[in-house]
Amino acid sequence: MMKNDAPAPLPLEPDCLPYLQQPVVLGLSGGRDSVALLHLLVQQGCAVRALHVHHGIRGAEADADAAFCARLCHELDVPFELQRVDVPALATEQGVSLETAGRHARRWLLAAAARRCKGGVVALAHHADDQAETVLFRLARGSAGLRGMQPVHVASGITWVRPMLSWRRAEITAWLRQMGQNWRDDATNAVADVARNSLRLEALPALNKALGRDVTPILGRSARLHAETIDALEAALQSLPSRDPQGRLYLPFVWQQPLALQKAIVRHYLQQNSVPDISEELVLAIVAILPADAPASRVNLPGNRQAARRERRLLITPA
Amino acid sequence: MMKNDAPAPLPLEPDCLPYLQQPVVLGLSGGRDSVALLHLLVQQGCAVRALHVHHGIRGAEADADAAFCARLCHELDVPFELQRVDVPALATEQGVSLETAGRHARRWLLAAAARRCKGGVVALAHHADDQAETVLFRLARGSAGLRGMQPVHVASGITWVRPMLSWRRAEITAWLRQMGQNWRDDATNAVADVARNSLRLEALPALNKALGRDVTPILGRSARLHAETIDALEAALQSLPSRDPQGRLYLPFVWQQPLALQKAIVRHYLQQNSVPDISEELVLAIVAILPADAPASRVNLPGNRQAARRERRLLITPA
Repeated sequence: MMKNDAPAPLPLEPDCLPYLQQPVVLGLSGGRDSVALLHLLVQQGCAVRALHVHHGIRGAEADADAAFCARLCHELDVPFELQRVDVPALATEQGVSLETAGRHARRWLLAAAARRCKGGVVALAHHADDQAETVLFRLARGSAGLRGMQPVHVASGITWVRPMLSWRRAEITAWLRQMGQNWRDDATNAVADVARNSLRLEALPALNKALGRDVTPILGRSARLHAETIDALEAALQSLPSRDPQGRLYLPFVWQQPLALQKAIVRHYLQQNSVPDISEELVLAIVAILPADAPASRVNLPGNRQAARRERRLLITPA
Repeated sequence: MMKNDAPAPLPLEPDCLPYLQQPVVLGLSGGRDSVALLHLLVQQGCAVRALHVHHGIRGAEADADAAFCARLCHELDVPFELQRVDVPALATEQGVSLETAGRHARRWLLAAAARRCKGGVVALAHHADDQAETVLFRLARGSAGLRGMQPVHVASGITWVRPMLSWRRAEITAWLRQMGQNWRDDATNAVADVARNSLRLEALPALNKALGRDVTPILGRSARLHAETIDALEAALQSLPSRDPQGRLYLPFVWQQPLALQKAIVRHYLQQNSVPDISEELVLAIVAILPADAPASRVNLPGNRQAARRERRLLITPA
């Protein structure tokens, strides 16, 4: 397969760049997004290794995906590893769908591969259209606000980076075509995702039309700003004089704050004390006992604990 | 017109309740939403007065709207005032659309009426479906995140309240029908709003379908939580030890903070110094000069001013 000269890629996520100096493991399905990311990482001069996970489903199709990935890595001189997983057996064992079992297996194998190369990070091929869909799904699940995927995050002791998070799906397609690079359609995640398709093909176009603009980059940008606001608040809460030397909430300070900040301080205090399932109602119930003249001074917490006001402090005690 | 016994209304916005003890001015168009709010305010025992603005367009239709409102207020024993405005003349004079001129005139007249009753507030009949549409429009305009209409806000020295902001359009319709109360269709704001209709009739249903749930209340709730996060951050920024006694940014504190909080501190400092048009780029440019060893120590600001680092402080000076 002859390739044209590689055209200049679009910019990568700036936050990811420092991590791309380290060994990078890429999950290469053979689909458009991971094929593009492989090229990008090679162009960046990364020490990249590709891992293809064969799911043990879709027979000859899946074998052809694996062969495509192996050949591409050989051409690009990238170390290639093939891992076979019996996803149907895993799905039965775990009592989850094939899709979920496949995703868990891939994440586990990628993390393990990153651990094997010292200081290794995992690169994920999510792009701006994935991001917009994720933002809307999370919004619908009722998480507060516009939370998106992060360009860099740490989980299971591994750093995961998403260098293509600002690229549009169409830009990736155009870039690969310019290079004369093909890809495998409907590769590993061929399970039809009805909700995502409906979002992509109906809801987002309808939103674009009604709002008179392309909302996909706006959703991504808003999610980033939202995350930044949350991070800024979290950091500010750490620096406020809201604790006494024993780490209890110091109420004469808290009393002076507007309600929104009182709520944030209480929520943050509960989080730091590992209180699970912190609901809006729980936070409000605790805010209500803060004033020195409040009739109640205790609120029950999950896990047999209590939030208690005592001598102008709020503390958490066994119930 | 005979009315059934009034069924119990849905709950009003809690934040509005204290303001409904004061004299309330309601803009009564005769449309469903303002007719419902009139009933609600009467049921709450508010000292409500209705103001109907005749826009000088739509001839006999508009006269019938005004007559409907006058009759309804008479039945409910609510003081009624009719104001005539020549909206076409205003639109020409101000060089704006009929719709914009009408909205400006209504807001101006409502504020004036509220000022005439001492301590008067203006009640607006926006509901949860309006809120969802507003949130999406503001999101598309690229304002950061999910900003919605507030249940209570102060503008032009007047307090504006939206007691029905949690009600759904369908709930308002059902409630009025239960009472046997009719309303004028397409009353004052009959100007076809293509974008809103497209959002309501196509985009929101498509979103609901793709996400498998009714996103309208979720958008309202997320907007409220977003506003609360912004308010909490704003209050926290006021309480942080980030200023010296002269009000300049005290950099040894700022340096210790993560980037997201540094940006928030700088943005807040610029806002408090009335710097207009504070862009993301401007904030980042200033964050870049904060470190003691940064090569540059000045950034130009709009209005012939500069942000300057000097002796571990950041201050704003004439350029």
